[in-house]
Amino acid sequence: MNYYVCLHQEGISSISKLIHKAHANNYNVVATSINANMLPMDPLPTDPTYPATLLSAVEWNSKMIFMLSDVDVDSPNEKLRQYSKEALLRDITWAEHLQNNGSVMVRLRGPNNDNLADIIKTKAKGNWFVHVPITNPELTTFEHRQDASESDIEQAQAVDPWSWWNNLRFAINHHPKVKVVLELSDSDRPTRENVRRWLGEPIEAIIIPSSLFVRNRNNYYVLLKEWQVIIGHFISVRANIIISTNPNDNAISQYADYAKKLINDNSDTHALNNYENMLEIPLQPLCDNLDSYTYEIFETDPVKYKLYQEAVKQALLDHVSDNEAKRKKIVVMVLGGGRGPLARAVFNAAQLTNSKVRVYIIEKNPSAIRTLSNMVKTLWSKQDVHIFSKDMREFQPPELADILVSELLGSFGDNELSPECLDGALKLLKPNGISIPCKSTSYMNPLMSAVLHNNVSQLTGTVPAFNCGYVALLKNVYHIDEPQALFEFIHPNRAAKVDNTRDMELHFKAVSDCVLNGVGGYFDTQLYKDIVLSINPLTHTPGMFSWFPMFFPIHPHKIKAGDRISFKFRRCVDKEKVWYEWQLTAPELGDVHNVGGKGYNMKLG
Amino acid sequence: MNYYVCLHQEGISSISKLIHKAHANNYNVVATSINANMLPMDPLPTDPTYPATLLSAVEWNSKMIFMLSDVDVDSPNEKLRQYSKEALLRDITWAEHLQNNGSVMVRLRGPNNDNLADIIKTKAKGNWFVHVPITNPELTTFEHRQDASESDIEQAQAVDPWSWWNNLRFAINHHPKVKVVLELSDSDRPTRENVRRWLGEPIEAIIIPSSLFVRNRNNYYVLLKEWQVIIGHFISVRANIIISTNPNDNAISQYADYAKKLINDNSDTHALNNYENMLEIPLQPLCDNLDSYTYEIFETDPVKYKLYQEAVKQALLDHVSDNEAKRKKIVVMVLGGGRGPLARAVFNAAQLTNSKVRVYIIEKNPSAIRTLSNMVKTLWSKQDVHIFSKDMREFQPPELADILVSELLGSFGDNELSPECLDGALKLLKPNGISIPCKSTSYMNPLMSAVLHNNVSQLTGTVPAFNCGYVALLKNVYHIDEPQALFEFIHPNRAAKVDNTRDMELHFKAVSDCVLNGVGGYFDTQLYKDIVLSINPLTHTPGMFSWFPMFFPIHPHKIKAGDRISFKFRRCVDKEKVWYEWQLTAPELGDVHNVGGKGYNMKLG
Repeated sequence: MNYYVCLHQEGISSISKLIHKAHANNYNVVATSINANMLPMDPLPTDPTYPATLLSAVEWNSKMIFMLSDVDVDSPNEKLRQYSKEALLRDITWAEHLQNNGSVMVRLRGPNNDNLADIIKTKAKGNWFVHVPITNPELTTFEHRQDASESDIEQAQAVDPWSWWNNLRFAINHHPKVKVVLELSDSDRPTRENVRRWLGEPIEAIIIPSSLFVRNRNNYYVLLKEWQVIIGHFISVRANIIISTNPNDNAISQYADYAKKLINDNSDTHALNNYENMLEIPLQPLCDNLDSYTYEIFETDPVKYKLYQEAVKQALLDHVSDNEAKRKKIVVMVLGGGRGPLARAVFNAAQLTNSKVRVYIIEKNPSAIRTLSNMVKTLWSKQDVHIFSKDMREFQPPELADILVSELLGSFGDNELSPECLDGALKLLKPNGISIPCKSTSYMNPLMSAVLHNNVSQLTGTVPAFNCGYVALLKNVYHIDEPQALFEFIHPNRAAKVDNTRDMELHFKAVSDCVLNGVGGYFDTQLYKDIVLSINPLTHTPGMFSWFPMFFPIHPHKIKAGDRISFKFRRCVDKEKVWYEWQLTAPELGDVHNVGGKGYNMKLG
Repeated sequence: MNYYVCLHQEGISSISKLIHKAHANNYNVVATSINANMLPMDPLPTDPTYPATLLSAVEWNSKMIFMLSDVDVDSPNEKLRQYSKEALLRDITWAEHLQNNGSVMVRLRGPNNDNLADIIKTKAKGNWFVHVPITNPELTTFEHRQDASESDIEQAQAVDPWSWWNNLRFAINHHPKVKVVLELSDSDRPTRENVRRWLGEPIEAIIIPSSLFVRNRNNYYVLLKEWQVIIGHFISVRANIIISTNPNDNAISQYADYAKKLINDNSDTHALNNYENMLEIPLQPLCDNLDSYTYEIFETDPVKYKLYQEAVKQALLDHVSDNEAKRKKIVVMVLGGGRGPLARAVFNAAQLTNSKVRVYIIEKNPSAIRTLSNMVKTLWSKQDVHIFSKDMREFQPPELADILVSELLGSFGDNELSPECLDGALKLLKPNGISIPCKSTSYMNPLMSAVLHNNVSQLTGTVPAFNCGYVALLKNVYHIDEPQALFEFIHPNRAAKVDNTRDMELHFKAVSDCVLNGVGGYFDTQLYKDIVLSINPLTHTPGMFSWFPMFFPIHPHKIKAGDRISFKFRRCVDKEKVWYEWQLTAPELGDVHNVGGKGYNMKLG
């Protein structure tokens, strides 16, 4: 992940000198007014501020963020409005000339930006950065005003610049090239909730005014702990940093170093970075055979198989100390053996408990069987292990199992059809046998995520995108409320008539105004007794990365603070397939998504 | 451009050892049978040759080319055919398991490959490399046969492995993931024409058998000059190199070093590499304003403006030595001034000839005017220079010009509407005035290019792709015949009634069987007297890169050696636009492409 640290200065004498200075002080990019001057401001087309030949095309594109003229194209004053529009269009023409794929920044001055939206929609050649204060800028003026009453301050606090952005976002129809640059202010620290909500937005960068820095005991410029935490959150969702200061500031290299340290401390650098916010079609291991790449990723999880091993260990101990004799072999069946990680956990557990085990590995993927067969001949040549190239639902065992071990769980628990597979494997298990896992529960919560919404929208040409569920490493996300339990499945399920359909309505509450873009899906599973794997954000198993959450999209829905948000979720089953249907039921009734599994379903065969 | 050098060996003891050995000897990739063995050949699914865990998924994908079993799925013997199909599908399943985006290679054994084509069409997950001998492999056996008659040899020479590939290509419907790997043979060197034709195919790599190497005086392994030239041609179209040898060969590092030297000597490394075979929509500078990036590329051409300067210099000398007095200023108008390169050429020419010039620069792009204005104030502050922000067709000059200088030419000469612009600027020129350029001519020839065809096909979803003309840096191209002159335009055109429509039919001849994919378009222009710019491949101005050729596609058409190929080409004009229509007229009558300019046209306003 490459971040940039950008130096923003106005009133400079030369763009090339600014770039040179920024580079010498450890900045990658500069931001300055597009009318930055060698000659006086406000040029006519024929009265240039600087020639295009000042920098190379690559430099214009990669080193410069252009601040467009700070004019009001939505002014109620027609003359001012007209002048502003001309000035802005002139700036944009010049920016488009200099940058064929660059970045321009425009400042929001208030809630009304319809004319600005019209301009952005027709002129989005490169990237548009929309500059928004993180709290109402008026609040900053009260510091210096004796006459402000409590009610003045309260009124100003009610002005929410997020809503300025939100209006604009709808007016430009969620344009994917438009991103937010958030400006922090030294006079007013945003609330935790304010910050959390912004994390669901497409944040390009945050502007840190140099006035936010304070000197520490060693006379170095640093940020207060509270600011570090806030900025850290934005860095973790890949926001870049813009330091805004004046041309005479001598501490700019300290700011840059400090910003780089913050980036270093707060940016995740795990190997799965590339998957952030990406939408993936969920695996269907029952009808598609997994490839080596997929097995390899799962096998490298540092936590999952340790917990499986621990679960098998405890089950063996419980089972052996039962009425069974110590010398009798315990039959363990691994359902879906893959390239061997579960079997390895079983052998380890047997060794640690001094148990004798006979292991049957059932695997339907003939390519995985090749690797398993090799392991039997080499690594496991002294084990009592038997491989069967079969679908577990059709497997006829030579004997019944004391313990079944499987890892058929998907991101949403049951979405890789573990209930159906394990029900089909029930006949393999002794009446007093154990299933690992023994329970799985899915969870869901409402989410705001402009980035996920854009990613879904981009698929609409090729798939019924709003009727699909996706696997996604959620990053730019605002959790509107906490996850709640949805469906539960118990294994072994010895019910006379097994029913794996489910139907549930869950109710959530919004703390702030926001936009609802869909539902996050998670699961936890009880392997054995108190040994649990979880990807529920509230209880996530530390260090485990085998499963990303799911995301079920809906079309954007404006939500007010205090609104109740309700969702109906159904798990439907017919002879060929299993599918989910989801529907917003409050604050308004939405469409039922994925009716009949037409967008997305899990094949049973 | 990154090439790889691959080591191909069979009968090896272990894949990981092969990779290790290859790496230690300077190879990036290895190729070997997918059934390469630690255990005996021909495994059953349950009898593995090696486990998937032998290499990481990244290594399987990036370090391995799998040779599929050399079986005959198109055998006339049904039993053999059935066995072959099973073996091949088994190999493919295993390859797809190990590589999620890797490369498999299959050898063509003869002209009939319909069953193979069916398999490839349904199983193209990664890349398919089709292994073809560059000449008939039977020819090699004659060396050792006493009994071969002249007619046997002639018959074998008539067998053309290119046609094996060509049949397969049509059977798989030009699948873009299928590429050719050509094997050279030590017993038979291909003709120049054979090599030239292969350059129009999607060549992934060439296989050099180690037996092709000979020892030089210093006892180093080298290739004969003739082979160097042949391989150099393939490298220039980005073919990689596979060295094929046996596991006991001790000279493998010499081969790799030699291959890298050949790559180094024969690979173009100009800055525009990324444009090879890419289709670009031609610029329309008359209705769109160019950006700085585009100007910058043109300005860096090391040849073009030198020739312009030379042309202006000679024109000034001729004009001054006329009846004009030495002290009189010569009026030069630059039509389309851009960011100043033509004006610079004029000032240089004036200085070199000691002439006095007054320069009017006419430019319609207001952003370019900014840079020009800055240049007037700085670089040219002592020159007699005047800038006009105007369309040249509407410009009212304060006086008439002695010399008009323009560079309005596109890749096809007239396709950026230089005829219409210069006709419109005729009123600016004195009756005895000079136009630089004074003539331009377009050229065309028939081309085979599988890569360009695939690139056009990929656009069909979004644009009327076979009715567009494209600008393209032609690389993987076979010139079926030499270019011929098409349309000519003279400037100034003082005809009473100017007609810039054109209509022409040209006739070519095919030397070899091939596939016609479209027409290449080029131009040359006479700037002044004998000073010419050309992108006609036969006369290309050395070192000039401002213009790439054009490509006008047609749907693939099989051509026989000796066929006459005829094309009709029309330049059409109406009030709003100019467009081309093209049509194959022999050996068969094809559709008229781009009727009425519906796919692609040049706007006049």
